[in-house]
Amino acid sequence: MSSDANVTRADAGLAPDWLYTPSHALDEAARRAAEARQGQLTKPPGALGELEALAVRLAAMQGTARPGVDRVWIAVFAGDHGVAAAGVSAFPQAVTAEMVKNFARGGAAISVLARALGATLEVVNLGTVHPTDGVAGVQELRLGPGTADFTQAPAMSLEQCTRALHAGRHSAERARLAGAQLYLGGEMGIANTTAAAALACALLGEAPERLAGPGTGLDATGVARKAEIVRRALALHRAHLHDPYEALRRVSGFEIAALAGAYLACAKMGLPVLVDGFISTAAALAAERLCPGTAQWFLYGHGSAEPGHARILAALGAKPLLDLGLRLGEGSGAAVAVPLLRLACALHDGMATFAEAGVSEKR
Amino acid sequence: MSSDANVTRADAGLAPDWLYTPSHALDEAARRAAEARQGQLTKPPGALGELEALAVRLAAMQGTARPGVDRVWIAVFAGDHGVAAAGVSAFPQAVTAEMVKNFARGGAAISVLARALGATLEVVNLGTVHPTDGVAGVQELRLGPGTADFTQAPAMSLEQCTRALHAGRHSAERARLAGAQLYLGGEMGIANTTAAAALACALLGEAPERLAGPGTGLDATGVARKAEIVRRALALHRAHLHDPYEALRRVSGFEIAALAGAYLACAKMGLPVLVDGFISTAAALAAERLCPGTAQWFLYGHGSAEPGHARILAALGAKPLLDLGLRLGEGSGAAVAVPLLRLACALHDGMATFAEAGVSEKR
Repeated sequence: MSSDANVTRADAGLAPDWLYTPSHALDEAARRAAEARQGQLTKPPGALGELEALAVRLAAMQGTARPGVDRVWIAVFAGDHGVAAAGVSAFPQAVTAEMVKNFARGGAAISVLARALGATLEVVNLGTVHPTDGVAGVQELRLGPGTADFTQAPAMSLEQCTRALHAGRHSAERARLAGAQLYLGGEMGIANTTAAAALACALLGEAPERLAGPGTGLDATGVARKAEIVRRALALHRAHLHDPYEALRRVSGFEIAALAGAYLACAKMGLPVLVDGFISTAAALAAERLCPGTAQWFLYGHGSAEPGHARILAALGAKPLLDLGLRLGEGSGAAVAVPLLRLACALHDGMATFAEAGVSEKR
Repeated sequence: MSSDANVTRADAGLAPDWLYTPSHALDEAARRAAEARQGQLTKPPGALGELEALAVRLAAMQGTARPGVDRVWIAVFAGDHGVAAAGVSAFPQAVTAEMVKNFARGGAAISVLARALGATLEVVNLGTVHPTDGVAGVQELRLGPGTADFTQAPAMSLEQCTRALHAGRHSAERARLAGAQLYLGGEMGIANTTAAAALACALLGEAPERLAGPGTGLDATGVARKAEIVRRALALHRAHLHDPYEALRRVSGFEIAALAGAYLACAKMGLPVLVDGFISTAAALAAERLCPGTAQWFLYGHGSAEPGHARILAALGAKPLLDLGLRLGEGSGAAVAVPLLRLACALHDGMATFAEAGVSEKR
């Protein structure tokens, strides 16, 4: 998995070398074939709008003129955050582990969506304060009882961050091995909108008040406190944040690093990714900054109600498919968009051409 | 189907009396029960955004705290337009009948979408220049070989308009009888964005250049000509356009009147409607103006790329679910939104409550 150009960086112990191997190339011949097919289907040119572009992009990603996304893999990564102690969430920290159990037992939004979509759902607990050992359907990795409070110290040690990135990579590899045609990552972690805001501020050089939002339900005072906490974290780690790996390690969290690792691995293997909301998009931005070109493997499910999401999407040049005011995380906004991809593929594959149907073309 | 208050109008021969019977009442108890359930599900309050409101509205429409839209009925109404002779479309008029056959044979976008959704698709040809007799799966009504050119005369006679409205009503009744939980209407008719623009201008008192758009692919010169043609039609029929029935009869078309009839019948029977794009929304506006209160039975699938759509949606106070740049008609934009309704219902029905899952609530 190593590449000569990056050995130096990896040898310096800053990050594992697999992060820097290039993304899989898109298939331009498949893209052209899909574009040509779109032009022959019985509809005015362009009349299916973004569904046409979606089918064409999936064709280039999957290397076939007739793409499909029947087999969908959803991984939800969970972890707790030391910064929760600062009171940056409307919910108590115990909820992270409680929701991990809820994911596995089928009662959470993402569990319901995965069932409805016929998707595989895996739940990876990277480290919650309250362990979830023995809960069927949870992969328990125990990188720590949550991250360190990043206003005091780096959120993760080098080893923890490396292991979190690997956990994401392994999830992507399981998806690939199972024949998945589309990868969705979700997250759960009380206080993780604070971590995502800090990470995005570090990567974008943006002011905390532009990216700190209400999360699960803070009022204006709570949002202001959250921005102040992000400001403190950025000040503490300032000397290191020019490096995307260090930004990820110092001011994000286990589940965010796992998402970044999963996205990077998907891009390197050529598995299309449907990115979720605020936190997932911050992880996606980190992946792109770690290895430029990764983002060509990303589609975006929805624009979150979390105000900072639009800023991160803009940095990625991304226009999400849905805008329904969701702000739940778990991968839910991406999951809700899966049927749009499926219908785009069904139309692309199943519609008759003008010639097949005997329909007159535009004059 | 008569109601005393409206007998006078019906007796005057202006329109059949069934149009004016009130809409079915929404079930406020079911709405409250659904709202209460939403508040107990394992997510921050409001975190599922518009999907929550959608489940609650469907609950009120269907009279149950646990709504569902598994059984979907799609009717596509087709008809030709005399005004096509003025050169207002990028496609030749023969395409209307050719596409009717394509719908029935399974090659059109709406055919593919109906299959993918497991929805029932019926195709009703109200009157094309080229007949489609003998094509399996097409209901051929033959109200005429297209409408009259409404720059010269009313598009429809009283009898034709009444029969078109009835055709829509009968479609809605078939849907109801088949146990449909959601009704989608689509349309096909070369030149029918011109007719829809004229109808919407008449109902809204809007200037033609605000509502005439490129349709299937006109350039700027073509759009200007189309606006001029709408202006001529409005001038000819001006004295009658204050009456929604006369507006519908004089400046719309068979398939648009059928859509209005279907929407009115759905509202009176209590069958939720998912409205499609520009033309369907003009028909929906006509239905609401004919019988105020009808629109409380409407959901809106997508915002069309046709520029005038936003203006008609605004008049109905409507915010569509999707904004993907579609401009195909056939009911396709509504069909693409069906999975969002299904997932909203699945989440509403399938998620665990805080109590069931043992998850701590917001502090």
